[in-house]
Amino acid sequence: MKKISELIKEKPWFGWLLYVFTIFIVFLVGLLASNIIERRTEANLVQQIVTPINDWEPRNEIWGQNYPREFETYKSTLDTSFESKHGGSATIDMLARYPNLVVLWAGYAFSREYNQGRGHYWAVNDIRKTLRTDAPQPSTCWTCKSTDVPRMMNKIGAASFYKTPWKEMGPEIVNPIGCQDCHDPKTMNLRITRPALIEAFWRQGKDITKSTHQEMRSLVCAQCHVEYYFKGKEEKYLTFPWDKGFTVEDAEKYYDENDFTDWVHAISKTPMIKAQHPDYELFRMGIHYNRGVSCADCHMPYKSQGNVKFTNHKIQSPLANISGSCTVCHRVSETELMNNVYERQDKIFELEGIATNSLVKAHLYAKACWDAGATEEQMKPVLLLIRHSQWRWDYVAASHGGSFHAPLECARILGTSIEKSQEASGLMLEMLARMGKQPPVIPDLSTKEKAQQFIGLDMPKLFQSKEEFIKTILPQWDKTAEERQGKINTGY
Amino acid sequence: MKKISELIKEKPWFGWLLYVFTIFIVFLVGLLASNIIERRTEANLVQQIVTPINDWEPRNEIWGQNYPREFETYKSTLDTSFESKHGGSATIDMLARYPNLVVLWAGYAFSREYNQGRGHYWAVNDIRKTLRTDAPQPSTCWTCKSTDVPRMMNKIGAASFYKTPWKEMGPEIVNPIGCQDCHDPKTMNLRITRPALIEAFWRQGKDITKSTHQEMRSLVCAQCHVEYYFKGKEEKYLTFPWDKGFTVEDAEKYYDENDFTDWVHAISKTPMIKAQHPDYELFRMGIHYNRGVSCADCHMPYKSQGNVKFTNHKIQSPLANISGSCTVCHRVSETELMNNVYERQDKIFELEGIATNSLVKAHLYAKACWDAGATEEQMKPVLLLIRHSQWRWDYVAASHGGSFHAPLECARILGTSIEKSQEASGLMLEMLARMGKQPPVIPDLSTKEKAQQFIGLDMPKLFQSKEEFIKTILPQWDKTAEERQGKINTGY
Repeated sequence: MKKISELIKEKPWFGWLLYVFTIFIVFLVGLLASNIIERRTEANLVQQIVTPINDWEPRNEIWGQNYPREFETYKSTLDTSFESKHGGSATIDMLARYPNLVVLWAGYAFSREYNQGRGHYWAVNDIRKTLRTDAPQPSTCWTCKSTDVPRMMNKIGAASFYKTPWKEMGPEIVNPIGCQDCHDPKTMNLRITRPALIEAFWRQGKDITKSTHQEMRSLVCAQCHVEYYFKGKEEKYLTFPWDKGFTVEDAEKYYDENDFTDWVHAISKTPMIKAQHPDYELFRMGIHYNRGVSCADCHMPYKSQGNVKFTNHKIQSPLANISGSCTVCHRVSETELMNNVYERQDKIFELEGIATNSLVKAHLYAKACWDAGATEEQMKPVLLLIRHSQWRWDYVAASHGGSFHAPLECARILGTSIEKSQEASGLMLEMLARMGKQPPVIPDLSTKEKAQQFIGLDMPKLFQSKEEFIKTILPQWDKTAEERQGKINTGY
Repeated sequence: MKKISELIKEKPWFGWLLYVFTIFIVFLVGLLASNIIERRTEANLVQQIVTPINDWEPRNEIWGQNYPREFETYKSTLDTSFESKHGGSATIDMLARYPNLVVLWAGYAFSREYNQGRGHYWAVNDIRKTLRTDAPQPSTCWTCKSTDVPRMMNKIGAASFYKTPWKEMGPEIVNPIGCQDCHDPKTMNLRITRPALIEAFWRQGKDITKSTHQEMRSLVCAQCHVEYYFKGKEEKYLTFPWDKGFTVEDAEKYYDENDFTDWVHAISKTPMIKAQHPDYELFRMGIHYNRGVSCADCHMPYKSQGNVKFTNHKIQSPLANISGSCTVCHRVSETELMNNVYERQDKIFELEGIATNSLVKAHLYAKACWDAGATEEQMKPVLLLIRHSQWRWDYVAASHGGSFHAPLECARILGTSIEKSQEASGLMLEMLARMGKQPPVIPDLSTKEKAQQFIGLDMPKLFQSKEEFIKTILPQWDKTAEERQGKINTGY
């Protein structure tokens, strides 16, 4: 030390050098220390396993003991009070709001009841209680509703699972969509538990088991938020119609070539395709996907509690949490962002309305043509137009957030839907005229009740049957489940 | 100074304080110096007036002597070789590429010739030579083509200018769109020289003479890049149909209520509205306008030459200069940005195609109905549908860059266009059937020539007449102009 002091006296610039060097080193040490502390905190959080989680553990509460923040936010999907301009995540009776839908789905269970979906936590409750499950359904309908599904698929195999009758599987399925649907219980890594997604990509020549973490943050959602169908009369094997690609036309061609029909329309006798919710497909057509954003980035943004940062598992519309979702990237006021979304929704909503009205007209004209004695030969091209028109309309209407994820693609699809139903109606107007008939008068479809009466639904009977099911069967299911896994604590 | 040295010896921290304080002051002085130098450089550049510019000076070359960089880039609008996927800024014979257009404009001058517009420098040349100006036109057609227009409006008044026959005004109009259209010659501030824009906003209760500089960077473009019409049978007063608002429906309602018709369609006898180029209106519906971006930000981005930064006056598609325009804000690769634009264009292009085909059908069906003896009473609602459908299609098709500026609004508009023309065709199919007639066969419209022949245009006669005009009249115009202002140096 003495030597250094002398050196500094002799050459003052050496003192300065030493001073700056010291500051630099101290700064680096500080960075390192902060990094170590942060990592240790994270490690503690991740490894603080209170209760070991078994393979295929369906009970979200058990996972929740180890990951209380994620579980608490997940559990808050019970609260679906947020309602945006055209829907959002609240429960809305869509048939009451848009009675035309009853006509579009005549002959299909959706004409009985169709509500805007709500939070994941409600999944088992809502499928049990909807009038749609009063008809005989296969267990394929359970696939996306519960953490018991991977457990049962592991036990009996996916193929056997699908073809088991829905009601037979009831006692096994009690834990709503949750932790194990997307997470590995040992590592907490994201994982795909539903085979249909892996199989669909595999047929396209892609192995998604090698996906990046950021890709997985969308793919776990794509297990369910997609267009799908039940393949095979008996098998009812859950299949995504992606073999030709991800566009609405690709899937349409796939269904046409496979001669697939969901149901025959009760009014127009059209062989119909029901679109499910092609959320992932439409998301892929939009700018956010294009820029590498994942579903979780906006629907499950990071959240801070004290000094802990974690993924918010209250999966919901980002409109309910703009400051947590959108403004992370977009430095624009919340009101302006909200208005930007509403503007997109308004425009799609307008085209959807035109498409819906056109389709109602087409179905009713078709009935008039049949009644007037039109032949199958005459009706075939017209029914194909109606099939494609409604498929395309439904592709947009059934999607969650399509008008935000890919507004232009939705508008394009609706434009082609309008073309086709209008074309069909024109041809049928001509047909009726040549048969000397007048086009039918569109009946009063101003309420859900009137529309359901018009298509001949016996609603009191359906309600009564469901009520009986809820009173007599559900308690049995719950009893069996409680004997198996202990208290069912789903909160509803 | 002695005292300070002593103080430092006594209290070493005071020396440090002095040291840090000195650094801070020197830094501030540096900032100030840089700022002064910068301002002086700018001042030199702006004030280096070589040739004084008189009020209403139309010759861009005179302005260019003072502002060589701006003038050189302006002059390079002569080069319109850039061609993007669906058009861009090159000259394309649109009727040859899309012969259906000939049918849509039957009876109107656009069916003779319609080219994709090119750079501002070509404005006078191209309007002189198009077959569209062979018909008798008022001087209103000159309004947006030349810097001689403000000069003449100042001389004889706007109202007198508009109603003068186009050919009579010819010798006065020789300098293409340029400096004085947008700049004050004394201050170089942006200014509005065309009264129609100020009047249109004034009728909406807005005084745009109080606009900010950033607003002016769009408003100077909005003098011309808008939807407009010639009001009054004699007056031909240039007017924007904005009194009800900026949407396509607002303008449609305006035209309907004012019983305005551009021409009666030669095939369907529909009272038509021709859309011009509602670029500013559509731009207002898009996200870039919403975020405060101006036309000049993307179409005239800043450019550096040596140490001088100036506004690039080569006004063109930003696709020809993505690195100068888009990537200033969007940190994405040029290829990706280009593809994002093309994707939007593709989708709008698809809907435009559907709308065009639907409209061709509707016009031909209407002719068949008239031929079969349909009454005016019967045809009225059908013709209204065609009028609105084509107006809406044209609103998108005629716009420059609409599919980029406001893709969703364009898709929405086209969706409603498709609905209306298809509806019309359906009603006419029915009408024909009730009259015991078959729908007409759509003729071969695969080339411009076939389409022009189909609508009965005598193209050789039109070409000959134009050629004569170019050979005999144009030299006279140029001679008169050269006597007035010296050499016409427009480079073409």
